[in-house]
Amino acid sequence: MASHIALEESGASFDLKKIDLKQAEQKTPEYLAINPAGSTPALVTDQGVLTENLVIMGFIAQTHAQANLADTQSSFNFGKMQSFNGYLASSLHPAVGKLMFSRPALEGEARAQQLDLVLTKYRVVEDSLFKGPWVMGDRYTVADGYLSVFSRWGRQAGFLTPESFPRLNDHLDRMQARPAVQRMLAAEGLEAV
Amino acid sequence: MASHIALEESGASFDLKKIDLKQAEQKTPEYLAINPAGSTPALVTDQGVLTENLVIMGFIAQTHAQANLADTQSSFNFGKMQSFNGYLASSLHPAVGKLMFSRPALEGEARAQQLDLVLTKYRVVEDSLFKGPWVMGDRYTVADGYLSVFSRWGRQAGFLTPESFPRLNDHLDRMQARPAVQRMLAAEGLEAV
Repeated sequence: MASHIALEESGASFDLKKIDLKQAEQKTPEYLAINPAGSTPALVTDQGVLTENLVIMGFIAQTHAQANLADTQSSFNFGKMQSFNGYLASSLHPAVGKLMFSRPALEGEARAQQLDLVLTKYRVVEDSLFKGPWVMGDRYTVADGYLSVFSRWGRQAGFLTPESFPRLNDHLDRMQARPAVQRMLAAEGLEAV
Repeated sequence: MASHIALEESGASFDLKKIDLKQAEQKTPEYLAINPAGSTPALVTDQGVLTENLVIMGFIAQTHAQANLADTQSSFNFGKMQSFNGYLASSLHPAVGKLMFSRPALEGEARAQQLDLVLTKYRVVEDSLFKGPWVMGDRYTVADGYLSVFSRWGRQAGFLTPESFPRLNDHLDRMQARPAVQRMLAAEGLEAV
């Protein structure tokens, strides 16, 4: 969803191919020939395949400068944006994924502990990393699309309340008003939350 | 260790500050003022703070072009290297970290299952992602330093045997012969393995 938003924002022409994780389609020989690591997403370009959301989003921003999806002129500013995306990728995503998608589902004390950890990680974004009005400040970047995926999950699961996380909720509302996000949702057969 | 190797390879002048994870020093108010996410490493630059190993290594490569630590001229080649680093950061690192550093330690069937998962992830590098003689092919990049950290862990723990993982072991030997790696080890009070 994060890389898909970046593609929609970029104005690039692209084909979308759904990989059904519930059917383990990311482990089929056909998909492993694209990404031997067996993870999604993968971006197939004329030059080869790129993987990992933050890499794909960074590449889209660098190769579609007219779309203004990152400060690609400053190594520091670009790195700062990728530091944020790296926090989502390596810290928030695995924590919320374990909470929401563990099979068998977490229950009782184990679920309560994991929820506590997850809320701590959203809290770091709400109170510290998020500059406002966009993730990096005045300028929209691909980091906004990435963050909105996790805000969507949190709102759907009921723990990202407007009272506790007003900035993330306001951000998600503004993201869902963007035409690129609406095109992404329509293409994936989803609705705003 | 990965960012430290990149700094040594870059020729930059820098100060090293140890953050003792066993003492939870990454959660002290002093450190959280540097990185609110409470994770290591963090690179404090004249422009601000960068976090996440792959971001720090990418920034070092971009800002020290004379050291030849990445193909910074091609967005695709740079992205391909970061896709590899992203695999280490988001897939291999958490799996091997859980195997080696869980407290209480994993035992019995839980440990056997985790070791199996870990070996599968090293296998993807050994057989598919590693081009040779360096990670990206003929050219040394910061990805080599990052990989060597996990090869070192695997050799220390005894599961990354030369028989099963000849390419990763050969790579680690060549890494440990590099002066920059030897300087890193000396500075951290460590020895080659």
